[in-house]
Amino acid sequence: MIRVIGIDPGLRNLGWGVIEADGVRLRHVANGTLHTSAGDLAPRLLSLHQQLTGIFQQYAPETAAVEQTFVNKDAVATLKLGQARAIAVLVPAQFGLEIGEYAPNKVKKTVVGVGHADKNQINHMVKMQLPGVQIESPDAADALAIAICHAYYMRAPAAPKIVGGAA
Amino acid sequence: MIRVIGIDPGLRNLGWGVIEADGVRLRHVANGTLHTSAGDLAPRLLSLHQQLTGIFQQYAPETAAVEQTFVNKDAVATLKLGQARAIAVLVPAQFGLEIGEYAPNKVKKTVVGVGHADKNQINHMVKMQLPGVQIESPDAADALAIAICHAYYMRAPAAPKIVGGAA
Repeated sequence: MIRVIGIDPGLRNLGWGVIEADGVRLRHVANGTLHTSAGDLAPRLLSLHQQLTGIFQQYAPETAAVEQTFVNKDAVATLKLGQARAIAVLVPAQFGLEIGEYAPNKVKKTVVGVGHADKNQINHMVKMQLPGVQIESPDAADALAIAICHAYYMRAPAAPKIVGGAA
Repeated sequence: MIRVIGIDPGLRNLGWGVIEADGVRLRHVANGTLHTSAGDLAPRLLSLHQQLTGIFQQYAPETAAVEQTFVNKDAVATLKLGQARAIAVLVPAQFGLEIGEYAPNKVKKTVVGVGHADKNQINHMVKMQLPGVQIESPDAADALAIAICHAYYMRAPAAPKIVGGAA
């Protein structure tokens, strides 16, 4: 069994979701959204770093996955996202974790079956795969989808049919 | 007297320079360049964070200044620079320091007198203002220029003619 955290990086809203994967079986642990308010960059990055470090301390994930930033034409938005993403990547590295990176389309294709799935479909499939989950926000849903995707690809290459799995 | 660190952020080469400002008098303390090699982002950001934290522990700056990233048309480069810049901003914030941000043109205009100064002019003026300095790299020269610029603007608004200055 392995505990996986998925992170959907963002400066204003950073989604996170923790699941446990035991072979093909998945279990929801926790999910949520970290917020920072508009203002100077430094206190926002510091707050994001502190909050995310707290999540790692509380839930002790063993592996992490972060959504690949998709670079768009708005350079200022790209820069902001890059800064938030740096924190999302730094914290797992500080805890000594390997970090999987998945493009948004790959996450959707893995979790929903198609690369162009909308928010409702993602919500639906996350709920299907994590019975009883209460999803805190759309960003947290994305983060759970990233965690599910990572659990799938961690398992897939080595031993696609393991059901029990090592502790 | 106040100890100022200037940082020129970059993922491959991050320049840093520490000076002491005592009113209008400036003194060079140290400068250098932090490197990370091509490869996965996470270990690079972690290494940058660890190295820069080490510089802060060693030189104990009291205030910091970081060059404002100039967003360009290469979105991938902008994203990388944003990620390096997040570390350059996070570390001083973790040490509780205020962070000045200056556009490259403002740094040049302050240190050299013109906004379009080239590397040689910056080197020359940095050496003029910090007698005896050995500049480790062009990125370190930029970082020292940022520190000089910050020392100037910290002093300027309150008391432009202080020569002695408080301890």
